[in-house]
Amino acid sequence: MFIYQILIEYDGTNFVGWQMQKNGPSIQEAIQKNLIKILKEKVILYGSGRTDSGVHALEQSAHFITKTKINKYFFFLNTMNFFLRKKKISILKISLKKKNFHARYSAKKRFYKYEIINRIAPLSLDTNKAWHVKSALSIELIKKAAKYLEGTKDFSTYRSSSCTAKSPVKTLEKITVEKKGTKISIIFTSKSFLQHQVRSMVGCLKFVGEKKWSLKKFKDVMNLKKRTFCAPPAPAYGLYLKKIKY
Amino acid sequence: MFIYQILIEYDGTNFVGWQMQKNGPSIQEAIQKNLIKILKEKVILYGSGRTDSGVHALEQSAHFITKTKINKYFFFLNTMNFFLRKKKISILKISLKKKNFHARYSAKKRFYKYEIINRIAPLSLDTNKAWHVKSALSIELIKKAAKYLEGTKDFSTYRSSSCTAKSPVKTLEKITVEKKGTKISIIFTSKSFLQHQVRSMVGCLKFVGEKKWSLKKFKDVMNLKKRTFCAPPAPAYGLYLKKIKY
Repeated sequence: MFIYQILIEYDGTNFVGWQMQKNGPSIQEAIQKNLIKILKEKVILYGSGRTDSGVHALEQSAHFITKTKINKYFFFLNTMNFFLRKKKISILKISLKKKNFHARYSAKKRFYKYEIINRIAPLSLDTNKAWHVKSALSIELIKKAAKYLEGTKDFSTYRSSSCTAKSPVKTLEKITVEKKGTKISIIFTSKSFLQHQVRSMVGCLKFVGEKKWSLKKFKDVMNLKKRTFCAPPAPAYGLYLKKIKY
Repeated sequence: MFIYQILIEYDGTNFVGWQMQKNGPSIQEAIQKNLIKILKEKVILYGSGRTDSGVHALEQSAHFITKTKINKYFFFLNTMNFFLRKKKISILKISLKKKNFHARYSAKKRFYKYEIINRIAPLSLDTNKAWHVKSALSIELIKKAAKYLEGTKDFSTYRSSSCTAKSPVKTLEKITVEKKGTKISIIFTSKSFLQHQVRSMVGCLKFVGEKKWSLKKFKDVMNLKKRTFCAPPAPAYGLYLKKIKY
């Protein structure tokens, strides 16, 4: 048996999300179906984690176990990408892994990026690719609030009610906030995230940025550890799974 | 009479270009039609220059002359953008100009950006937004070749046969080449450009980058001042009109 890892870029707009579901097309299903077609054998594709409907990936990571030794990577990638060409899914890379590799459980760090475009005019070049926020955001306040989120904490405030993680305590290693023109990019680094954590944190950071919340209020909401106090989560289409580090 | 300048972002994918044409929808027409609707008066929209079908704009500049004093900019922009909301055109700003202002003739500097994604896997997040080049490009060679293009020169090699400019001599002020991951961005600064000049230069730079042409060959082609020696122009969808400076 061989374990292969693949790296995947996708535009999540027209999918129900990464995970196979009955209610519509998923990225996992689209790729797995073509893996089975090429390998002529039943394989299961395991992702590093789920992404919601509308969430994009710059470099999702997944693995599958197969009896087939894939010899020609170039040919394999070309064939896969040919089958996927109309789906806005690209397989970037394939590599052979050791027996104990698991796309989800071996992950050491996950990087997510959230993109906001902060201007009054609607988006034409970045439709479905960034959150359009009209109210003026203070980048300085967002940076200060983001600092509070770093470290080992109970993130219950930012946790979806349907989250299945055993513990709400996670270590958020780093948040970087950058502004270039009207685009604000926020990058989150952590070993793992709770369901909807990034989007919920971005929703709260936006409230601080537009001065709807003071920094004190932001901190209080965080420390209350109650979902009900959280700001509305930022929309899925501004979120990108950026990279998985093993 | 009042002269107003507007700044415009657009996704050029579904247009025949900036300029009004009989064979399909243009950006100029879409905006002008709605200006007439709002101002209830026949106005003409003058752009800083044409962009081809598929070419995008981060900040195109245009002006129109009207009898109407526009008092509420916020309201004007909202109404315009409401009418344009399905067209992937956004009016970013409006401002009142002095009598001698002309979007095209008053321009002092034009900035264009060309985006290449250099990797084997097809594009899914940047479809129609960047040129997908599969062959490995040397960023160092591209930078060296780009240096040759700077300055006051006869750019006949890069000039479309249908170009109507009086002279092929232009001053290309600056070219900056940047690579970030697999994305190569090339920014061109000049008072004005010949028709298809940027895309033709990018086509030649790509030949150098993939070592199809030596630097000497690149220089020779430039100095021959003959269109027939030019490399195939880069596709329209990687090109962005970035900004006009007055």
